Amino acid sequence: MWTKNLLKFRDYFRISHIRKNYSAIAAVLEKANVGESTEIKGWVKNLRVQKELIFADVSDGSSAKRLQIVIPKNLKTEALSYGSSVHVVGKLSRSPRGQLELTADSVKVLGECVVTDGYPFNPRTTHPPEYIRHYLHLRARTNYISSILRVRHSVTRHIHDFYAAKNYIHIHTPMLTSNDCEGAGEVFKVQPDCEATVKAMMQEGRDRDTAYFGTKTFLTVSGQLHLEAICRGMGNVYTLGPTFRAENSRSRLHLSEFYMLEGELAFCDNIKDLQSHIEELLKYVFVQTRNTNEADLFTLDKENIKAPSWLDKKFVTLSYEEARSFLDKKGMNVTDEGINKEQELALVEYCDGVPVFVVQWPKQLKSFYMKECEDEPNKVDALDLLTSITGELVGGSLREDSYEKLKAKLPSDSLDWYLELRKFGNIPTGGYGLGLERLLQVMCGISNIKDTLPFPRWPHNCSL
Amino acid sequence: MWTKNLLKFRDYFRISHIRKNYSAIAAVLEKANVGESTEIKGWVKNLRVQKELIFADVSDGSSAKRLQIVIPKNLKTEALSYGSSVHVVGKLSRSPRGQLELTADSVKVLGECVVTDGYPFNPRTTHPPEYIRHYLHLRARTNYISSILRVRHSVTRHIHDFYAAKNYIHIHTPMLTSNDCEGAGEVFKVQPDCEATVKAMMQEGRDRDTAYFGTKTFLTVSGQLHLEAICRGMGNVYTLGPTFRAENSRSRLHLSEFYMLEGELAFCDNIKDLQSHIEELLKYVFVQTRNTNEADLFTLDKENIKAPSWLDKKFVTLSYEEARSFLDKKGMNVTDEGINKEQELALVEYCDGVPVFVVQWPKQLKSFYMKECEDEPNKVDALDLLTSITGELVGGSLREDSYEKLKAKLPSDSLDWYLELRKFGNIPTGGYGLGLERLLQVMCGISNIKDTLPFPRWPHNCSL
Repeated sequence: MWTKNLLKFRDYFRISHIRKNYSAIAAVLEKANVGESTEIKGWVKNLRVQKELIFADVSDGSSAKRLQIVIPKNLKTEALSYGSSVHVVGKLSRSPRGQLELTADSVKVLGECVVTDGYPFNPRTTHPPEYIRHYLHLRARTNYISSILRVRHSVTRHIHDFYAAKNYIHIHTPMLTSNDCEGAGEVFKVQPDCEATVKAMMQEGRDRDTAYFGTKTFLTVSGQLHLEAICRGMGNVYTLGPTFRAENSRSRLHLSEFYMLEGELAFCDNIKDLQSHIEELLKYVFVQTRNTNEADLFTLDKENIKAPSWLDKKFVTLSYEEARSFLDKKGMNVTDEGINKEQELALVEYCDGVPVFVVQWPKQLKSFYMKECEDEPNKVDALDLLTSITGELVGGSLREDSYEKLKAKLPSDSLDWYLELRKFGNIPTGGYGLGLERLLQVMCGISNIKDTLPFPRWPHNCSL
Repeated sequence: MWTKNLLKFRDYFRISHIRKNYSAIAAVLEKANVGESTEIKGWVKNLRVQKELIFADVSDGSSAKRLQIVIPKNLKTEALSYGSSVHVVGKLSRSPRGQLELTADSVKVLGECVVTDGYPFNPRTTHPPEYIRHYLHLRARTNYISSILRVRHSVTRHIHDFYAAKNYIHIHTPMLTSNDCEGAGEVFKVQPDCEATVKAMMQEGRDRDTAYFGTKTFLTVSGQLHLEAICRGMGNVYTLGPTFRAENSRSRLHLSEFYMLEGELAFCDNIKDLQSHIEELLKYVFVQTRNTNEADLFTLDKENIKAPSWLDKKFVTLSYEEARSFLDKKGMNVTDEGINKEQELALVEYCDGVPVFVVQWPKQLKSFYMKECEDEPNKVDALDLLTSITGELVGGSLREDSYEKLKAKLPSDSLDWYLELRKFGNIPTGGYGLGLERLLQVMCGISNIKDTLPFPRWPHNCSL
């Protein structure tokens, strides 16, 4: 078989960790080979001119840490300034205080940065996030945003590792969908911009909205229904990708485009199994990220760098009625609309910051596809996981697996395909959705969700 | 520091490979613990009734391989049929022919499958892909589609591994953008579906198209420009996600929504470095996937299961002029529009199926952001990588890094932000885009791109 043929190519595929001609600063700092000739490329983050020498802190994005470059004054040029990009060749040494530094033999400025010509960031200044957010195209050059994006990268990676170890299949659920009933009206519709295309594709009896796809088409609000279809052929599956809401909400917790992690557990017939899975996932991702991104987390939240108090505690579980009666006692009236944000945060505070699962929800507060509780037909086997900072972080449920019950609750004929999943070789499943940006808010202590992703979109804001 | 606190939790985070109460069939087959009591859950793929015994092949999606279940006739129920989902408890043994099998002590049917009640798939039948495609919600139950989706999962995973080993940061570039000039008119526009939302958000002087975001908003055709912005603050970056084209094209190579892998190499000033990177990536992903998904690749392409002939060969490089003159000699006239699909495939065939880089492209055939060749200002440092089956698989270039040259070529004022990236601490970069679905076509020998993803969208087709 072909596997034998491939053995001889194996050596070919040792992936090089070393960049061509130059080294990543993260690797230089980790190896710390004093005396070694070294080349780096990066940006000057700080510059201190002394009598004989110039000290430059250089970062290349590979880590929150910088390498100190020692530059003899004769190598200094006008172009060498805060914000400029440089190519430095030199030798690694230790400063008198024991810090690793690179003593430069040559310094070449690749790109100048004239701060007075409109560059929005200044040396030795901590700009507030609201200010930085005005410069989306340049803000990856700030410590604040670059650390967040490195953490975001790592969190994503650890999530994939978690599922890989459990043999879950990653499914790319679609962005475009003809399902509209899940979004409760808060959907974006999609159509070609070009009039000629619309005209050429319009079929009889159709309008502009339906010309291209033949049906009205929306941006997805959730991959769950699609994931359930795949789960009923392939078992455990998950998806992690963009999701959209056309809400007119400008809160610090909402975006028009955000990432959602959704998992669907095959053969899951007990909400407790779903809870254990979610708790394990969150603890895994928190611990792994603190191992891989210590310097970034320190940059983001110097005050709160210790592990969250709940990492070694079991998450709390409250029934909806228990939560409601606790809030009543606190004088917070829970209306028929359900538990609001302030109340969610009060519940978490009551539990000393430990995340709280709220389970056994009144049927009318939850979606049609959620499974009735066995002994209480007016309740469904749903869960919300509440945390500090964001309140609701995860929402999930067992799925209604009775064909007849689901048929009675189906909100639209256009979901007949979803009903049919229960007709042929059906299995019990349960699943959940977790907002990636909210997870980053909790992990990094970021109060505004708009700083957890590179290019935030919210009402009246879609720049670049 | 908190890292010490966390050490004691380490043991907590050994992720279990074993499913609760039952085992994945992939794991059962791999361990092959004859004599062991075993529980599995899955779907009946085949059923053979003999005198005393019934043989059922069961799959749970964890692998293309099935486990044979031996069922004493007294355990047979009416509900046990092709397509039904089952929970089997029994003991592992070897068949007389050496095959691992599970002799059932109990068989519980979880979900019936009455084939005559509208189930589109039949036992012992190989349905053609065009037929299967009519049943998007059920097609993950077929061997063909489930194998493709497992390969797709693995390819994605290997791509992330490749970049992780090189310390690239994964950036989630946005789906929604106010840039329109890259799509050459072939963009989808996005607006809220709800009239009340549109009315409430409309600002003076705006229309329906601009009500929600304040600017006309489109689905992305490429994350490149955004990636370049991040690359100029954080170094090497990549993105892998959905991309959209509102083309009226129904070819076997086009989709309205597809996945694109885009990488941007920091400090890259030579197209050869970009070529080596792309070649290394492709060979890595091919070899790794053939190691992880042998059974799936065999399911998909029994004829062609040996490694592609080019895995141990260096990719070919031709200049655009060389390619053109070869095609001329073959009697294939290259027009001013560039090389067409038929000609791309002829070039690859000429090179015995080895992928071909075409470089040094005429400026007028390529995008504004591509860098002029040093000695030939009417050419740009661009590349197309051509392969069998799909023709163009990858497109890339060095990026114009001169502020003045880029300014002269900028197609729209709305890209001033992109120009400004060159003004402050600029670096040379190069990058590329690779269509994930086309990669899967090449790897699995799939002629129609609509079978490489779970829910394909193309003109007049957006079901589910």
